Order: sequence, then C-alpha cells, then structure tokens
Amino acid sequence: MIQFHCDYIEGVHPKILERLCQTNLEQMPGYGKDHYCESAKQKIRCACNREDIDVHFISGGTQTNLIAIASLLKPYEAVISVAEGHIACHEVGAIEATGHNVIPFTSTDGTLTANQIRKYCSEFLSSPDFEFMVKPGMVYISFATESGTLYSKQDLLDIKKACAEFDIPLYIDGARMGYGLMSPVCDVTLEEIAQIADMFYIGGTKCGALIGEALVITNDKYKPYFRHLMKQRGGMLAKGRVLGLQFDTLFTDNLYFDICKKAVDLALKIRSAFENKGIKMWGNSFTNQQFPILTDSQLAHFDGLFTYEPWGQTPEGLNIVRFCTSWATTDENTAALIEHIDKL
Amino acid sequence: MIQFHCDYIEGVHPKILERLCQTNLEQMPGYGKDHYCESAKQKIRCACNREDIDVHFISGGTQTNLIAIASLLKPYEAVISVAEGHIACHEVGAIEATGHNVIPFTSTDGTLTANQIRKYCSEFLSSPDFEFMVKPGMVYISFATESGTLYSKQDLLDIKKACAEFDIPLYIDGARMGYGLMSPVCDVTLEEIAQIADMFYIGGTKCGALIGEALVITNDKYKPYFRHLMKQRGGMLAKGRVLGLQFDTLFTDNLYFDICKKAVDLALKIRSAFENKGIKMWGNSFTNQQFPILTDSQLAHFDGLFTYEPWGQTPEGLNIVRFCTSWATTDENTAALIEHIDKL
Amino acid sequence: MIQFHCDYIEGVHPKILERLCQTNLEQMPGYGKDHYCESAKQKIRCACNREDIDVHFISGGTQTNLIAIASLLKPYEAVISVAEGHIACHEVGAIEATGHNVIPFTSTDGTLTANQIRKYCSEFLSSPDFEFMVKPGMVYISFATESGTLYSKQDLLDIKKACAEFDIPLYIDGARMGYGLMSPVCDVTLEEIAQIADMFYIGGTKCGALIGEALVITNDKYKPYFRHLMKQRGGMLAKGRVLGLQFDTLFTDNLYFDICKKAVDLALKIRSAFENKGIKMWGNSFTNQQFPILTDSQLAHFDGLFTYEPWGQTPEGLNIVRFCTSWATTDENTAALIEHIDKL
Amino acid sequence: MIQFHCDYIEGVHPKILERLCQTNLEQMPGYGKDHYCESAKQKIRCACNREDIDVHFISGGTQTNLIAIASLLKPYEAVISVAEGHIACHEVGAIEATGHNVIPFTSTDGTLTANQIRKYCSEFLSSPDFEFMVKPGMVYISFATESGTLYSKQDLLDIKKACAEFDIPLYIDGARMGYGLMSPVCDVTLEEIAQIADMFYIGGTKCGALIGEALVITNDKYKPYFRHLMKQRGGMLAKGRVLGLQFDTLFTDNLYFDICKKAVDLALKIRSAFENKGIKMWGNSFTNQQFPILTDSQLAHFDGLFTYEPWGQTPEGLNIVRFCTSWATTDENTAALIEHIDKL
Repeated sequence: MIQFHCDYIEGVHPKILERLCQTNLEQMPGYGKDHYCESAKQKIRCACNREDIDVHFISGGTQTNLIAIASLLKPYEAVISVAEGHIACHEVGAIEATGHNVIPFTSTDGTLTANQIRKYCSEFLSSPDFEFMVKPGMVYISFATESGTLYSKQDLLDIKKACAEFDIPLYIDGARMGYGLMSPVCDVTLEEIAQIADMFYIGGTKCGALIGEALVITNDKYKPYFRHLMKQRGGMLAKGRVLGLQFDTLFTDNLYFDICKKAVDLALKIRSAFENKGIKMWGNSFTNQQFPILTDSQLAHFDGLFTYEPWGQTPEGLNIVRFCTSWATTDENTAALIEHIDKL
Repeated sequence: MIQFHCDYIEGVHPKILERLCQTNLEQMPGYGKDHYCESAKQKIRCACNREDIDVHFISGGTQTNLIAIASLLKPYEAVISVAEGHIACHEVGAIEATGHNVIPFTSTDGTLTANQIRKYCSEFLSSPDFEFMVKPGMVYISFATESGTLYSKQDLLDIKKACAEFDIPLYIDGARMGYGLMSPVCDVTLEEIAQIADMFYIGGTKCGALIGEALVITNDKYKPYFRHLMKQRGGMLAKGRVLGLQFDTLFTDNLYFDICKKAVDLALKIRSAFENKGIKMWGNSFTNQQFPILTDSQLAHFDGLFTYEPWGQTPEGLNIVRFCTSWATTDENTAALIEHIDKL
Repeated sequence: MIQFHCDYIEGVHPKILERLCQTNLEQMPGYGKDHYCESAKQKIRCACNREDIDVHFISGGTQTNLIAIASLLKPYEAVISVAEGHIACHEVGAIEATGHNVIPFTSTDGTLTANQIRKYCSEFLSSPDFEFMVKPGMVYISFATESGTLYSKQDLLDIKKACAEFDIPLYIDGARMGYGLMSPVCDVTLEEIAQIADMFYIGGTKCGALIGEALVITNDKYKPYFRHLMKQRGGMLAKGRVLGLQFDTLFTDNLYFDICKKAVDLALKIRSAFENKGIKMWGNSFTNQQFPILTDSQLAHFDGLFTYEPWGQTPEGLNIVRFCTSWATTDENTAALIEHIDKL
Repeated sequence: MIQFHCDYIEGVHPKILERLCQTNLEQMPGYGKDHYCESAKQKIRCACNREDIDVHFISGGTQTNLIAIASLLKPYEAVISVAEGHIACHEVGAIEATGHNVIPFTSTDGTLTANQIRKYCSEFLSSPDFEFMVKPGMVYISFATESGTLYSKQDLLDIKKACAEFDIPLYIDGARMGYGLMSPVCDVTLEEIAQIADMFYIGGTKCGALIGEALVITNDKYKPYFRHLMKQRGGMLAKGRVLGLQFDTLFTDNLYFDICKKAVDLALKIRSAFENKGIKMWGNSFTNQQFPILTDSQLAHFDGLFTYEPWGQTPEGLNIVRFCTSWATTDENTAALIEHIDKL
C-alpha cells in the first residue's frame, strides 16, 4: 500500500541522515550549545535576513506551541485562534494546561482576518462583561493553515496592524512553513514573515527533519530567559546536536525550500488529476495537502492501494479526504496515484 | 581534548544508526503507532518479565518526569525527593510548573530511606498544621542517583513498603538505569524494579540512544489516558518511529546492558587509577560517574587535555569533579586518561 | 432609583445580621472548625436527608466552581458546560487557569441534555482524533441556569444516567439554587438533587447571605483532602464562623426556602405585569430573573427610575433586559415597578 | 477557657459591625464598585500618602498572596521567601499551584537580608547550572514576620536596593501589618512601606476585620488588568461592599492603628509578666505575638484555663508556645492571664 495520508510517514531527508552518520561520534557539548546548533541558527538568521533574531530548536510542534504561547501571555490572557487551529482542537488542551484559554474564531477556510481581531478586541474592551472575560493577549495563526490555505502578504500585514492596535503579539505556527512558502500562490517570503511576526516557527518534522522545529523570536521583549522556559516544559534535548544538525543541513544550499517545492509540485499534479476527472476540491489548498470530495464508491477505488486521511463530510454527505505529499514523496508513487485517479 | 565531563557527548550507538538508515524510507504510521514501537514495547515487557505493563516512549528525561509526576499526583499532593534530585534542582521548576511541590529530603549520598518517608508522612498526618501542608503524594527516587549511588534490593523493598503504608506510589527516574543495573555492587534486576516501582523509566538518552526514554507503568491505576497526557505536555513525537527503533535495537541481543556494563567497567578502571594515586573519591559511586577529590594543582593537570565537570567543593576547599563514561567511551580514550592520571 | 438589575444589591438577611451581632465577641476556633459551621453542616445534611455528605463553606461562586472542578478532573480532562455557563464565559478563564478546558455545548435555553452528553462522549471515544482531544471528564450544569430556566427531575435523572454511562461525575452550580427550587414549575427537591449530583453547591451570596456558598460532596470518591484543596486555592477563611453562622441561620426554620420563595413570587408578579401589557418574555424563566423584550422607547420608560441589566438583543433588534428580585426585594419596590410597567 | 492562641478568635470590630448594620439594606453595585470601596481606597491612599497607588480588596491572606505573586512572576520565575514564610509552609502549596517555586532562605529570626538576596541572585546568574534553575523573580517578606519580628527601615531599604540591583519586585505580606507598625521597636511607617514595596497588603482579617485584606500596588507595571486576575482566581466578591465598608471604617479616625497599638501594648504586658518570672522568650517579638519558653509543668499550669498555640521545641526540649493578642483582646482577659503567669 502506498501512503499519502499525512506528511510524516517516512524518516528524515537522506542528506541529514548522512550528516548524522558522519558526525555521530564527534564529541560536543549538550543542550544545544554545540557548533551545529550555532551554525544552524546563523543560517536561519541569514535566511530571515535578520541578525537580531533568537532561534531555538524544540523537538515537536505541540511543545513549541505551548512553550511559545506560555512565554507570550500573562496569566489573565488568552490566545486567539481559528476554531480548527492546531492548538484549539488537536493538542489535548495543551494551552489550557498552561493556564490559558484559546478563543476560537469561526473561519470558512482556516484563516482569520484582521477585522475579526479588531471586532473581538474592541467588543472585549467595551463589553459590560469586560471584567469577567479573559483578555485577548495574542493572535495565533498557521502558515500554511490546517486546511492548506495561505495568508497573502497583505493579509499578514493587516493582521499585524490589528495586533499592534491592541498591543498584542502575533505568533505563526509554521509546522508546514516550507510547503506554504513554496506554494505557487504564495506572495510572502520567509524574510517578510520574520519582519511581521513577533514569534514563529519553521517546521522541521513535516518538512524534511526527523524531529524538530526552529522557533524564531523577532521581538526583543520575548527573548530573555526563553531557554529556561524551554527546559521547564521539557523542551530542551540533552543531545541538542540532533536538532542543530538537521536545521544546519536543511538551511544549506536551499535544501529546505527545494524539497518543499518538490512536494508542492507533486501535490498540485494530484490536484490536477482529480480536477481533470471533474472532482471538486474542498477548500482552496495549493500546498502539499489536497482535499478531493469523493463519493463512497470513488473512495473505495483507493482502498487497499493508497492511504488517505478522512477529513470530514460535505453538507451533502460526500467524503472530504486528504492526500498529502511531503519531501519524501517519490515521483513513482505520485505517478502511480495519478494513474489510479485517472481510472476513476 | 578528550571529553569525560558527561554521558551525552556523542550521538547514538552505531547499531541504532545503522537501523535508522536501513528503515528511513519505510512508510509507517505516526505518533508511536508503528511496528517498531510495538516491537520495542514487547521486548521491554520481556526484559521486565511482565506482560501486563504499559510502555511509552518520550523524548527526554525532564519531560518524562513531569508527565509521569503530573499523572501520579492529585492537585493538593507533592512529590518527595532528595534535595539533590533532578526534579528538585535541575529542571527549572518543571514539577512546580505542573502545580505541584517537591518536598526535599536531606541525604548524604543521594539516596533517601524508607524511614525518612515514614517519619515525614507520619508527622504530616499528625501535624497541628496538617491542613496547611501539601500532602506527600508520591516518592521519586533515581536509580542510579545523581551522585552515582545505588539502592540495594532491600532498600527498594523497604521504600516500597513505606510507600504502601501511606498508599502512595513509587516512581523511579532511570536516566542512568543501565549504568546502575550493570554496576558490580548492584543486587537488583530490571525485572525486580518492574515488580517494585509503580512507574519508572529506562533511560535512553544517556545509555545509547540519541533521544528518548522508555516509561514503564506497572500499576493499572495509572495506565488509562496516559497518551493523552503525553500529547498535552508535548511529549508525543509525530515520528515516534525514531524512539521505537532505538529501544527495539537497545533491547535486542542484550545491547542495552552490554554497552552500559562496558561503560561501568571503564569508569571503575578510572576510579582505580585515582585510588592508586592515593586520591580519595567523593561519595560512593560504582557506576559510570566517578568523583575524585582533587587539589587545584591536580586539577590543572587535566586542563586542556581532558574535560571533567566541576561538582562542588569539600568542606576543606578541595575540588570535587566528575569524570563520566558512557556507552561511547572508547578503550583508547580511557587508557589515555588513566595514563594521565598515573602521572599525577 | 430603585434597583432590580441583579440579586446581590443589598447586604445580608436581617436574621443573619442579628446573629452576627449576638455572637461577634464569642471566642472560637478558626478555619471553619467552630460549632456554628458544624451546626450549619448538620442542618444542611438534614435538609438533604443524607447523613453521609460532606459540606464545606467557601466565600464565593467562582472560587467554589474552580475548587470543585479542580477536585473532580484529572489533568487531561475537561468539563462539559453550556456555552453560556458561568464557568464558560463569566469567570475570566478560572477553569483554564487550573489547567482544564471547558467544552461548550450549544443550548437554546441555558440547559443541556443527556443526549448531547451521550453524543459528545461517544464521538470522542470513537473519533479518529481521539488521542488529540481532551477527555470529557465531568458535566457542569446550573440550577437555575443563567437564563433562569430549570431542569425537571427527569432531565436531571437522564443527565445523571448519561454521566454514569461514561463514568463521569455531575456537578451542579447552585448559585441560585433557592430560587430554582422555589419556582412553581420546579418538580425536584434539594433532597433529590443530593441524590443525583456527585457534588453541588447551595448558593448563599445571591440567596440571603453576605458572602458564601455551601458545597456538598455526595460521592465518597471526592471527599478526601478537599479542605487541603480549598486552602491551596485561597478558599478557606480564617474566620470561617462568618460562613457557618450564615448557613446555620439560613437552614433554621426554613428561612432559605421561605425568602427565596418570596423573591420568586415577586418576580412572577413582575412577569405577569409585562405579559398583561402584551410584552413577550425572552426564554422561559419562572425563577427570580425575568427577561422582558422591550423596544427602545419602552426601555426608556424605566430609565432613571428603575435599574435593569442589558442582556442582549433579539434577531429583530429588540432589547432583552433582566429584572431581578432577591430575598431583599420589598413589596413596596415591586409594587412601584409594576405600577410603572402598567403605564407602558 | 480564655483564648490567646491566635489573633482571629473573635468576629469583627464593633464599629464595623455597627456600620454593616446601618448600611445593610442600601442598594449598591457589586464587585467592589460601590462607594464604600471607593471611599476606603481613597482613605488608604491618604494613609499611604500616595495618590497614584491602586488598592484592591481580597477576602483572605492566602488568596491575596497567590494572586499577587501570580501577577508578579513570569512562568520561569520563583519567589524568594524565608523557609518559615507563610507561602512556604502554611498554604498547601498555593504558590506552586500557580506554577511557581518558592525558594526557601534560612533565617534565624524570620527575616531575610539584602545580602542573602544578593548572594543568591549573583550565584544564580553565574552558576554553571544557570539554565537548569528557576530564576529568582521577586522577594516575599512579611511585616511583621511569622515569628513577630520586624524589619527596620534600613533593612527594608537595603532589601529594596538588592531587589533593584537584580530588577525584581518586592512584595510585603502584611497580614499583621498593623501590629508591626504599632510595635514600639518599629521605625518605619505605612507611608514609607508604600514607598519601598512594589506591592503589599494591609491585613484586615487579623487586625479588626471579619474578612479581607487591602492589597496595594505602588508600581505602575503591575497595575493593568489586576482585577481580571482577582476574578480568575476567585478573589472578587459579588458583595464587595463588605470589604470596602470594613476598610473604610478601619481607616477612619485612625481606628486601624489604635486597635493594633492596644493589642501590642497588651502583648508586651504579657511578655513582661513572663520575663518577670525569669522565663525566657523565644525570638525577638515586640508585636502582638509572644513566645515564652516553658517547661512541661509550666505549660500544664495554663491548661484548661488559657489557650495557647504550640510553636515548637528548643534544642533542649523545652516548649515554645505562642500567646497572641488582637484588637479584640480585653484588659480583663489580659489581667487574668498575667495574674496566672505571676503564679508560675
């Protein structure tokens, strides 16, 4: 069976594995103080075109989110997110376990808007129930979103402006940052994201690494003692080298972007294959996740041959499913899937 | 410079690395539901000679401790630990961040005793301040301890009995479990530990793995929904395979025990070398950590050639330092160090 | 201006004040260990017709809710509540601050149903996202609800049955318990509530007391060490006598029920006055809160003379406002309000 | 039996009770927005000679401490306190339950020193374990201390200076502020305390009130959204009037200071009586708490006639006990106690 249900099906990019093998017996300090971590941080600073940013490596997405959000909020503050945000529904209440509410915004496509932020924060400030409500303390968005959609550069600037109006920081979950940036419909760069967000992470786990995310802090206010918080929440690996080496490799010779671009290209070929058969796509994803809307019999066509992820149902009762590519998806497997789609 | 300051200086055991390479492109489910995790769990059940235990893989020690302790305590309960316990002074308040106190017990050698537990719990129950004190809700010990000392089988049975008298669970931090079990002065087996502890972990990070600890739950009461808590605290890796594969390898053909025994053997040779020079050792460690007591000039003898970790001072102002071996320590490096000790 | 906007406008019932004066200089132990607390507890046990319940006095509703819920949930569990529940939107994230999510259920009248619980819990257990979701760990309902509505005895039995099916406790917020029980449409007794709920509280602050709620624990499982949790969260008053004396008085000679009944009677007279003028009431409250739907000019009729609380708007843009009675509402003030309504 | 074991044995000062009676049926807004709260705040601002301070009323000491400390610390920070501080050992881990460590300083008399702070913070900053330790984030002291001792003005200025050197705030627990300020050995005023501390509270519960403490925030940095945090932790009473009215009365015509002075005077008479009999006093308390050191037979002399609180034992095995006065202690009862002491 060929697997397309998610983007963490295989291990790690071969170039990283090669370097893990080469460097395995080198002796170096623990806790991310090794020179591979330092080199990786420097390369990320270059990629962001900002020398003044802090970079930290954390083993997974949920952990990165909970540490970042705990660092950004005061005890009486909550984080704004779309209702389908990863922190809102996919992390077993990780944010609430740090003592903070998630304020769920409704969204039709996985994104939230500057005006939603403005409206909510204004209503909070003028509400007769003001003193009984949690203060909105930050905005969480994902790039790309859970539904594979993207914010335009103008969207992000608008959101940042709304945040600034209420003096709250903007945090971007970049679990699929690479796939987002490499989408043909993306008009924003990593450099621009590093100008707009107060804190964000560049996802490794889903974009070529075995484990690990690179958290970037651009706002000086949130830099001090961040490593203390990481350690406190169990987010600092003794052998930090494994994270540093991965990001050092990913940010050498454009590897991170190249492999993500390849994945998006393959995903869009799959998209075209579905569309060529007259099959509608759910949402508006031009990233590595594709969501065809299939009848039961169409779905059965794939069973036992290709894996996909059930995603939901349309109001008409049709199946929304997810086919995912990743840096590890091969041309052969993609061709096999497309050939099979063509037979629908 | 040859490094002996800690036991996480190198990467991962070559056999594990080999298997990571071999299996890297295999497609498999995420979040620890792959067959390598399953196989590793089964092998650990075998090693513990208990089919009824739950095994979970978590990326690091602090994270394992905080998840385990959060699962064992009620909101008004605290964990008993020696004052130099890892959770008490080396994790930036990770336990307090989950809402619980650490009750520090004094200890001369890193261990606590059954009678200390009895005395504290009895005094708590009969204290006039009973209702103003946190309830002691569990006991945390390390095997081996931070100082490299060990509990005897009888010690552990006594501690377990004291815990049972007050109906509180016993948790064992096994970051250096392998080195403890393979010490020539150890009279307890993994199988017996799995009989005595309600929960414990078998350390991977310091004992051959790149990252990862294997948490074992022996008491049925604490099994349900443990994975939910792991996910909530950021302790569940998307690519759980990396943890499963490591422990699967470590628990194949006795590898875990063999490599730890080798490390202890080398450490004891280093110990002998110091003792042969009339140098006293701090504490009573017959595991992979050795703590010679050195004058300033003796210490200078090593500078620039061999790394060690400053550990403290004796009342007389002499230096206690740590030399550590690990699964990765070579015969050559050990011989070089011993030769250098001989020249003191 | 005569105030009808809420039910905590005046101080304390005169009989309580009289006893506070009489007993003021009596010397007695602190922290609720005085004989007035003991006597009050015994009277509440009588009123509930259960000798086996634990009773604790806590100063306010939010504090009672957060202590109760913290005692009922495990770290990975969340509390089910209607979206307009007090804990869900009126306590600045007090529950989240203890580390737990509130799962908001939609409701048209402020109540939730057994089938909603069943559906949610079943879907949780069978969800593909099971391990990424917080476990529903208890049900929170209010009696009367924020909207003044009531559960029938059969509703409560059904909810309890649904809870039992998923082995989760039922907690009832009784901030307005007295007004609920004394409603002419109520078919359940305090005794029955003490049979059905695992934990609940009998509201004092809004029902005759100056401060204080009486928390009742009926399920043995949740009794141990509850006072420790109360102290930890700041919920144990040094001069507990002030709470004991109030509930001792309220549960002497049926005072609690008599004064609440009087308040409900007056509220229903106000309701009739509105209805006699053809004015529709929002929701279905036959308790001490009444919610007429008024045009802007009708509302202006009251301004400067009688206070009310803005409650919301109908889809048509009409004003929903709240008029509240309490144990302290006088016949004279009620007559004045009704006379004024008659002039609409 | 005449009770001297603590300072919360009776109810409330008669002048307060009188005003509670007078104002009981006045209608006023909830949640501390009434004019009595406003008036009380203004009087406290006057007493502190600072118009720019924020004042909040909270029902008890533990709750005040936990809310204050939660507002002052970042997630990775801990609070410095003497080991016998109320927060360190008498509040069931209330601070830890908010996620923060208490760092216990040893003390011979209940006070800590500027140099202890300096030493600890310097060592923290230069420690090789820096990144594994919680950051000291604030200093907590009590005035008077649990042992009845006092800081001199110079002590407080020194502590404040040490805090400033490390950029951490100073918080003073004033549960017995009145008794401290009125001690003949006190050389500091409320006005000066309001200059020195970043946040402190003026104790009501033990100094004339039925319930309630007045928290004062002098540092602008900690003022915003404090009421949100109070509500979140259950510290905002619906009938805030009961707190406002009490402090309004206590800060009218010097009542707070007069009644505390009277209590201290009586306590010092008791002290003299013990000393006249050659009985040594434990510690150095010239406030309302006196700690004679008694043999078993001396102690038996009081049994059944006067209550006292067991406080500990001297190394020689003698009994340290506490006799306490309060605003409510009468001349008659004091005379009776002294007469009884004279018979020792």
